[in-house]
Amino acid sequence: MSMGAETAAPRRRQGRRPGSNDNRQLVLDAARARFATDGYAGSTIRKIATDAGVDASLVMQFFGSKQELFAAVLSITPASLTRFSDAFDGPHDTVGERVTRAFLAVWDGDPQDSEPLLAMLRAAISNEQATTQVSDFIQSRITDALAPQLRDDEDATIHAGLVASMLVGVIVGRRMVRVGTMVDADHETLVGLIAPAIQTILDARRGDSKNS
Amino acid sequence: MSMGAETAAPRRRQGRRPGSNDNRQLVLDAARARFATDGYAGSTIRKIATDAGVDASLVMQFFGSKQELFAAVLSITPASLTRFSDAFDGPHDTVGERVTRAFLAVWDGDPQDSEPLLAMLRAAISNEQATTQVSDFIQSRITDALAPQLRDDEDATIHAGLVASMLVGVIVGRRMVRVGTMVDADHETLVGLIAPAIQTILDARRGDSKNS
Repeated sequence: MSMGAETAAPRRRQGRRPGSNDNRQLVLDAARARFATDGYAGSTIRKIATDAGVDASLVMQFFGSKQELFAAVLSITPASLTRFSDAFDGPHDTVGERVTRAFLAVWDGDPQDSEPLLAMLRAAISNEQATTQVSDFIQSRITDALAPQLRDDEDATIHAGLVASMLVGVIVGRRMVRVGTMVDADHETLVGLIAPAIQTILDARRGDSKNS
Repeated sequence: MSMGAETAAPRRRQGRRPGSNDNRQLVLDAARARFATDGYAGSTIRKIATDAGVDASLVMQFFGSKQELFAAVLSITPASLTRFSDAFDGPHDTVGERVTRAFLAVWDGDPQDSEPLLAMLRAAISNEQATTQVSDFIQSRITDALAPQLRDDEDATIHAGLVASMLVGVIVGRRMVRVGTMVDADHETLVGLIAPAIQTILDARRGDSKNS
């Protein structure tokens, strides 16, 4: 926080010079409109770039992927986007706990991370148009949470979807419907109970259901 | 239901003959208004009876309990009300499957049972006033799902609340947000995956967390 930088670095805005912040905002506005019209699945980076009057490579440079762009439109923080899917990596015998902790850290943690997610869920539940956008987005997140070699494995997809759904249920009980016993429950008590249940579901994919 | 009582007990109203259907509807209307004003916890059978201009014993005769009256206001069928809590009774080693099947039978079954429950959940998620009513109601259902000797057991209450929340999450994914992989999942596949996870949570209460 050097005082000297104050006058030099950040330029005037208001008269709007087409700086990178302006372009970023243009892309966000175009994306919001395009997602609302064509849905998540029907929107492409190329169309959004055309709508915003910028090059598609600039959209990728700002946001990296359609998923991250959609998340940015909903003000979902990058951390809350990657934390859940990253948790699937690592030793299998502790994946239940990693996934549970990662999920609760963003959905039941810092309001900056959790509020946009709760808003997304509320919109998806109460608004038909939002439902389709969000469900397609979540479907793509679920697939991405899986290791590349598992992405086409229907069982693995169901297991990951079920894990995400059941964890969302914990948040519905604790943060949305606010059932007393769930609101009052201590964080570590919840992790201690939920993690083995999540592990049970993720263990099933190595299990007997298919190999019998 | 003696016919002789008809003329004596409940008085006339507007042009209508004061039959038992009229009184039942009067009670439902009074209950709806009272729950909206005072919330679920703050409303009593006595107050609702007074509002409806009938005797409290008649309200009990029609509905049996405040819970059942609240459910009736929301058009929740008696079957969907008892099925989940009844499933907690019986041998412990199969409680996970019983509870899972009972829950999905009402929440993912016949629209006559499931639609009012989905409407209740939608209202609780999107409407502050409904949230309090529904959360108090669900809290009382969770406690009642437990055997009488367990009702004051804080652990048992958290476990039952967690089970209900996680099962609601499955419905949020499958019926509300409608994530592709959850919508497409076969009913028996879901039961096969969910039941052991629910069993894991309900086993914990006999387990090590407290006895160590």
